[in-house]
Amino acid sequence: MQYVWGFDEANADPELIGGRGRSLTEMTALGLPVPPGCSISALACRRFLQTGDLPGDTWDQVVTHLSHVATGNRPPLLAVRASPPATMPGVMGTVLYVGVTDDSYPALIEWGSEEFAADVRRRFLQGFAGTVRRVPRHRIESVMAEVCQTRGAKDPAELDTAGLVAAGDAMAALIVEESQRPIPATLEAQAREAVEAVFESWDRRPARQYRRQRGILDDLGTAAVAHVMVFGNAPGESGTGVAFSRDPVDGHPMPGGIYVDGASRPRSQLLYPGIAELDTADHVAHRNLTNALSALEQARREVVRVEFVRERGELWLVEARRAEQAPQGMVRSAVDMVDEGLLTKTEAMLRIDPEQLDGMLHPHLAPHHLPTPLATGAAASPGAAAGEMVFDADAAVEAAIAGRSVILVTREALPEDVAGVRVAAGLLATHGGGTSHGVVVARGIGTPAVAGIGNVTIDLERRQMSLAGRSFGVGDTITIDGSSGNVYAGSLAIEPPVRSPALERLLEWADEVRRLEVWANADTPEDAIVARNAGAEGIGLARTEYMFAGERLAVVQQILLGADPGERAADLAKLEELQIGDFERLLEAMDGMPVVVRLLDPPLHEFLPDRLDVEHDLQLRRDQRLPTEDLERLEASLGWHEESNPMLGLRGVRLAVVIPEIYRVQVLAALEAVRRRLDAGGDPQLELMIPLVGLPEELFLVRDMIEEEVHYAGRLLELAIGTMIELPRAALVAGDIALGSDFFSFGTNDLTQTTLGLSRDDAEEAFLRDYLEQGILVSNPFRTIDPDGVGRLIEIAIEEGLRVNPGLDIGVCGEHGGDPASIEFFHRAGVDYVSCGPPRIPIARLAAAQAALRYPPPVVPDPAE
Amino acid sequence: MQYVWGFDEANADPELIGGRGRSLTEMTALGLPVPPGCSISALACRRFLQTGDLPGDTWDQVVTHLSHVATGNRPPLLAVRASPPATMPGVMGTVLYVGVTDDSYPALIEWGSEEFAADVRRRFLQGFAGTVRRVPRHRIESVMAEVCQTRGAKDPAELDTAGLVAAGDAMAALIVEESQRPIPATLEAQAREAVEAVFESWDRRPARQYRRQRGILDDLGTAAVAHVMVFGNAPGESGTGVAFSRDPVDGHPMPGGIYVDGASRPRSQLLYPGIAELDTADHVAHRNLTNALSALEQARREVVRVEFVRERGELWLVEARRAEQAPQGMVRSAVDMVDEGLLTKTEAMLRIDPEQLDGMLHPHLAPHHLPTPLATGAAASPGAAAGEMVFDADAAVEAAIAGRSVILVTREALPEDVAGVRVAAGLLATHGGGTSHGVVVARGIGTPAVAGIGNVTIDLERRQMSLAGRSFGVGDTITIDGSSGNVYAGSLAIEPPVRSPALERLLEWADEVRRLEVWANADTPEDAIVARNAGAEGIGLARTEYMFAGERLAVVQQILLGADPGERAADLAKLEELQIGDFERLLEAMDGMPVVVRLLDPPLHEFLPDRLDVEHDLQLRRDQRLPTEDLERLEASLGWHEESNPMLGLRGVRLAVVIPEIYRVQVLAALEAVRRRLDAGGDPQLELMIPLVGLPEELFLVRDMIEEEVHYAGRLLELAIGTMIELPRAALVAGDIALGSDFFSFGTNDLTQTTLGLSRDDAEEAFLRDYLEQGILVSNPFRTIDPDGVGRLIEIAIEEGLRVNPGLDIGVCGEHGGDPASIEFFHRAGVDYVSCGPPRIPIARLAAAQAALRYPPPVVPDPAE
Repeated sequence: MQYVWGFDEANADPELIGGRGRSLTEMTALGLPVPPGCSISALACRRFLQTGDLPGDTWDQVVTHLSHVATGNRPPLLAVRASPPATMPGVMGTVLYVGVTDDSYPALIEWGSEEFAADVRRRFLQGFAGTVRRVPRHRIESVMAEVCQTRGAKDPAELDTAGLVAAGDAMAALIVEESQRPIPATLEAQAREAVEAVFESWDRRPARQYRRQRGILDDLGTAAVAHVMVFGNAPGESGTGVAFSRDPVDGHPMPGGIYVDGASRPRSQLLYPGIAELDTADHVAHRNLTNALSALEQARREVVRVEFVRERGELWLVEARRAEQAPQGMVRSAVDMVDEGLLTKTEAMLRIDPEQLDGMLHPHLAPHHLPTPLATGAAASPGAAAGEMVFDADAAVEAAIAGRSVILVTREALPEDVAGVRVAAGLLATHGGGTSHGVVVARGIGTPAVAGIGNVTIDLERRQMSLAGRSFGVGDTITIDGSSGNVYAGSLAIEPPVRSPALERLLEWADEVRRLEVWANADTPEDAIVARNAGAEGIGLARTEYMFAGERLAVVQQILLGADPGERAADLAKLEELQIGDFERLLEAMDGMPVVVRLLDPPLHEFLPDRLDVEHDLQLRRDQRLPTEDLERLEASLGWHEESNPMLGLRGVRLAVVIPEIYRVQVLAALEAVRRRLDAGGDPQLELMIPLVGLPEELFLVRDMIEEEVHYAGRLLELAIGTMIELPRAALVAGDIALGSDFFSFGTNDLTQTTLGLSRDDAEEAFLRDYLEQGILVSNPFRTIDPDGVGRLIEIAIEEGLRVNPGLDIGVCGEHGGDPASIEFFHRAGVDYVSCGPPRIPIARLAAAQAALRYPPPVVPDPAE
Repeated sequence: MQYVWGFDEANADPELIGGRGRSLTEMTALGLPVPPGCSISALACRRFLQTGDLPGDTWDQVVTHLSHVATGNRPPLLAVRASPPATMPGVMGTVLYVGVTDDSYPALIEWGSEEFAADVRRRFLQGFAGTVRRVPRHRIESVMAEVCQTRGAKDPAELDTAGLVAAGDAMAALIVEESQRPIPATLEAQAREAVEAVFESWDRRPARQYRRQRGILDDLGTAAVAHVMVFGNAPGESGTGVAFSRDPVDGHPMPGGIYVDGASRPRSQLLYPGIAELDTADHVAHRNLTNALSALEQARREVVRVEFVRERGELWLVEARRAEQAPQGMVRSAVDMVDEGLLTKTEAMLRIDPEQLDGMLHPHLAPHHLPTPLATGAAASPGAAAGEMVFDADAAVEAAIAGRSVILVTREALPEDVAGVRVAAGLLATHGGGTSHGVVVARGIGTPAVAGIGNVTIDLERRQMSLAGRSFGVGDTITIDGSSGNVYAGSLAIEPPVRSPALERLLEWADEVRRLEVWANADTPEDAIVARNAGAEGIGLARTEYMFAGERLAVVQQILLGADPGERAADLAKLEELQIGDFERLLEAMDGMPVVVRLLDPPLHEFLPDRLDVEHDLQLRRDQRLPTEDLERLEASLGWHEESNPMLGLRGVRLAVVIPEIYRVQVLAALEAVRRRLDAGGDPQLELMIPLVGLPEELFLVRDMIEEEVHYAGRLLELAIGTMIELPRAALVAGDIALGSDFFSFGTNDLTQTTLGLSRDDAEEAFLRDYLEQGILVSNPFRTIDPDGVGRLIEIAIEEGLRVNPGLDIGVCGEHGGDPASIEFFHRAGVDYVSCGPPRIPIARLAAAQAALRYPPPVVPDPAE
């Protein structure tokens, strides 16, 4: 069985020689300057890890290969590196300078210098000690520090030749002492230990952890490569570098990279486009490098990153791989490559991870020289923002009018904070997770937000926050990064989102191929316009509860708590008039496009004062012997509204059963708004959506009420009436529900909560992390749809819904509507549109295109043929 | 078309002549003394209610029939009554003495007396006013009161002849005044109005409400009967009565009933066995009556109730129907009828509503002379109890030791109250619904409980309760009736549950035919013994959280809150030792039978002090400048455990992921208990059950942990490991879960909550009543399984579970396991056993038998034939 292939053997199994082995083989075939060597199969690694021995004649094959390798006139040292199936930077073993022996040492001096040879020997022994013989790092460092101290050097780079020799001697002694075995005297014996050490590194903790995070299977094993050592630290024109075929940050189509001069001590490190300096220094080497990058890019049809060594003026390439690119670079290079004829549009669309687009759609911190964050919380809504702190919605609105940029700081972001969230540059909710009211609004409209930072105390009355031992008050500036969850003191530099013509072209291509429509969740005319500009084809979810925020909250509270029927009727009329305006403006902003208005959904207590606050006030007034009757009535009423599990309580369509007036007011307001838009010559396309239906009878009750009002309206109003499918029961009886529905809209947030019996608020804070870390869950089911549970219910509902009502429109309006993996699921399940927050529309458009490209409709034979 | 049938016509359509019409026809056929007359079709009623007119020649048919009727020598008056499809007592129209005219009046005097005639006329006009002409009741009463007052009489029964005449005149004037129409002058015209009034009464509010409560369809309509009037108030040997073929209360096989002497004024009313007095007075009439009862019982094969009239010594039967029986009577009569050869065992089993058995299984209030209740709450656990009030578990335990009967009064019944619930005679939880911890325990072990009474204040510190304007303290006695939800002041007489040999025989027959096994939910050895005696074939659910109550709570709190790892380990060891004893005793009580122990399920905060209490104490200590550090630490820790939706939070198997120690301790304790039982020569059949599994990986995690411990145990322990299926996702991925399960046990309480998105605590208190009253729900889904939603998930899970693991045992351990309608569903779905609270075991045994009789297994042809 063949376990070893030379880089010049094209028949090597690409699955078994790993990424590095493949790239060295590929570059050899392209005629690029690669040091000769061979790949050792990952199969040998797997057997080695099982049995403790290299299988069969593996080692003989290695020796045979290396014996044929010509090292030229340089000393015959080897580099032994891991070649895992996927890049695993920093966690796999590497042993360089293998072959420093009594025999080779004079040759090293002769080829280089005494100092070079001593340094090479020191480096070899240090690496051999740590990687091969597993001498503890602190032992190596303390021995090395002792040598340096004795010689008056800060670090090994300052040692002179004698010092380097002494360091090597000390390291050799340490190895023998710690491992109780001599250092092999031959290159072959050293190389064998090195290869085995590389294999062993696959099973060590850092590699295992890395694989778990990235989902790389444990039983693949790693290949290894052994090649002739090329010396970036050789005396003369030497150095090492990393080069890219295009700018990995912005995609600019020019090669660049980093080159570190091996001769200068201490070394100078030249940042991108540092290799331009190489051009000045050594035009030939530079041209060879750029030619190699170009050849690799043409061959691979992707932006490449190579590691190179310049040894006494001669260029060597030691690895090539796909460059990791920033979102903007990824998009631009893909689009450019289409123009260059290197890629098809389909290939360009499929190679971009839609999720990564998020990185270019929000303002972000300038990447360099970030201070240490004060605290880190949940990355609740991406993007960065800086500004003065305010502690309530009113102050935020005032500042917005005055044109100042503010960060709204709250304890939990409640409905009463929403008006502030809408105008603030950013939101810091010190307590709670990513699901409180205000945070959901922030994410929906793209306001950066951080939630739930630990170790903070906040005093909203005094408007002070104490964090990381520092005290902050009104006017102090902070910066939040909702992409990382970090909070910084002061006002840091923030870069605006990138305007990218390349992205716009890419999304146009996506629109041509996708089958899923992309709608937006938007509650205000302003959000609707943003959504429309981002390419939304409708509003899939307008949450009317957000229209109950701010000053209107008082009216809603009156309705819920007021005892006097006359007052209640007046309050309802007032609310109706306000809602008419809301709906009218929303329909105007989306003229000609569908607008799905959801009737009131959340539990009523969300609109009421906090019971603890009321009890506190009550106690105060009692202590001061002030009248308490009103507060007592309020408290009793709040008690009535209190629920032990509000998620599963009196909300959604249940409100229509118990307190029908509120739904009626909303329906009347919606109908009047449609009439006014028609009178104004508009094209309003209102759809009314009923939340939390579990029993078909609930739907029919509200549908009857709506149709009665439409009937009384005395003018033909076209109006679609539909249901959210967000309870398991709704999915299971979808056939019956479809009888009374023009559309279904899957509320995947709540459907996930009920199907999994998992409160998002509680789980994300308390234990979902444990689940993900222990691999019990592969992904957060509130981000990516759970296909076996929630997904199966969706499939059942679609099948039974369409069977009964083939004209049923099917949408998704949970946050999964903006998640690429979920979008692929929805495409395959036969959903008609996804609706997501405006900031995620570009992501959804691309993801929908990818789904359509990966899962084209089945070709139905033409029955006429 | 025939709308009218004489009682002597056997071809009348039984669907169209109603219960009364059928019984009169039946009795006529049996040759029993029935006044001649006819039935008028419900079809005529339906048409009449639609069009306002009797259809076709209905009235001619009535007239023709009545013209053939011989009244003998008595005046030709008629009784017109409703004959609805099902008994609707008190809500349908009846018009008696129809035919009092100028022509018939002299004949009435001649046949009876002047007084008799005047009284008959007064009665006729009074009934005609109210039932036919819809004169408001208060008008009739005030006119009648005026006449009585003028004549110095307390009520019409005291009026002399002249007074009765005057009363009749006043009534006649009132009718004309109110209805603006004359009183018909002929029997025929009076009868037509009476029949139409009877038909109209079908559509009036009382009848509609009654039908809604009993699920009788609105569009059936009522039939009517018109028959010759027989006079229980005739001068001479007259009277009326109701008689039963057997004692309707205890089933004693002797006829009895009530006879009211029509001659005595004021009337004496003789209670059962009052008709024995009739025997003394008139042996022939009595013999005729008992013979009629016997003939009817033989014909109908059921206990019958007849209404009879004795008119001048002659017996007439005016209705026969099935007797409404008390549970004990129902059971005894059915069993006796089997012995008498009247019924088969199958018929006897099928005719008893299992739910009604509940009425004979608990202590109950003596039915007569109950005072007005102080308050009415939720009937949370059936049965009645009286005793001194205590306000905490310790006091209840003390009293129990002293042998005193106490009612434990709490605000909400929390885990810390459980020890008290176990020893108290009854539980009154002033707040909360039927689902709090203590109430569930009470129901499970059969302790009567009332929960959530309105308008109460309770001060647990001062041990006082203020209710209905009265103040109660320690030692005051109250009585609660958990079957009605009533609370009474003082100690009322309570009758013990009935011991019924007949029930035992019935249940033995049930055991012979049922396929479903009946297991019990029981947490203690005491409960297990009760369950075993009641016929339980195993323990389907032993809740280990109840073992964490009482003094052990402190240990559990230490484990959850303790910061010191050493202390924690010691606490865990202590808990393990305690649990070993728990499990050992349970296994001993159920030796040779399966015992399913559920690992810890509820959210941890249920074991912790109430956060509000801690904050309150903290405030107090701060005000008094006392040290607060410990309390502050406690409060922070409680905050960590606080959840917004605990139902969907950190509980069940999720605890095993986040805090594996507790499950490990429980597993170790269970294994040790099995070992000790084996050493003692017992036959322990332990099964471990993992709650709230939604992801197969969760199950495998715990299963691995258990198997590891079994492995280390070093001795072969047979142990079934299974899952609760109580989340929709678990049902949907049941195939994967079955790979690691020896059994499934459906936790239908939680499965209902999640499938319907309905928190039981919140819904039952806040809006489920609205749903039931408005007919959106047909039954409470927490009582009777929702077949379309929850039921469908159960079917999916069973199908997929058995496909993967054909040996899977399938049980149900939610409260639905004791509900007859649900049991039928489980039988049909292929469940192997239901597990319910010990008090419901007899109900479940009978319900399981009924299911098996109604849905026998399909007959599979023998392949050998």
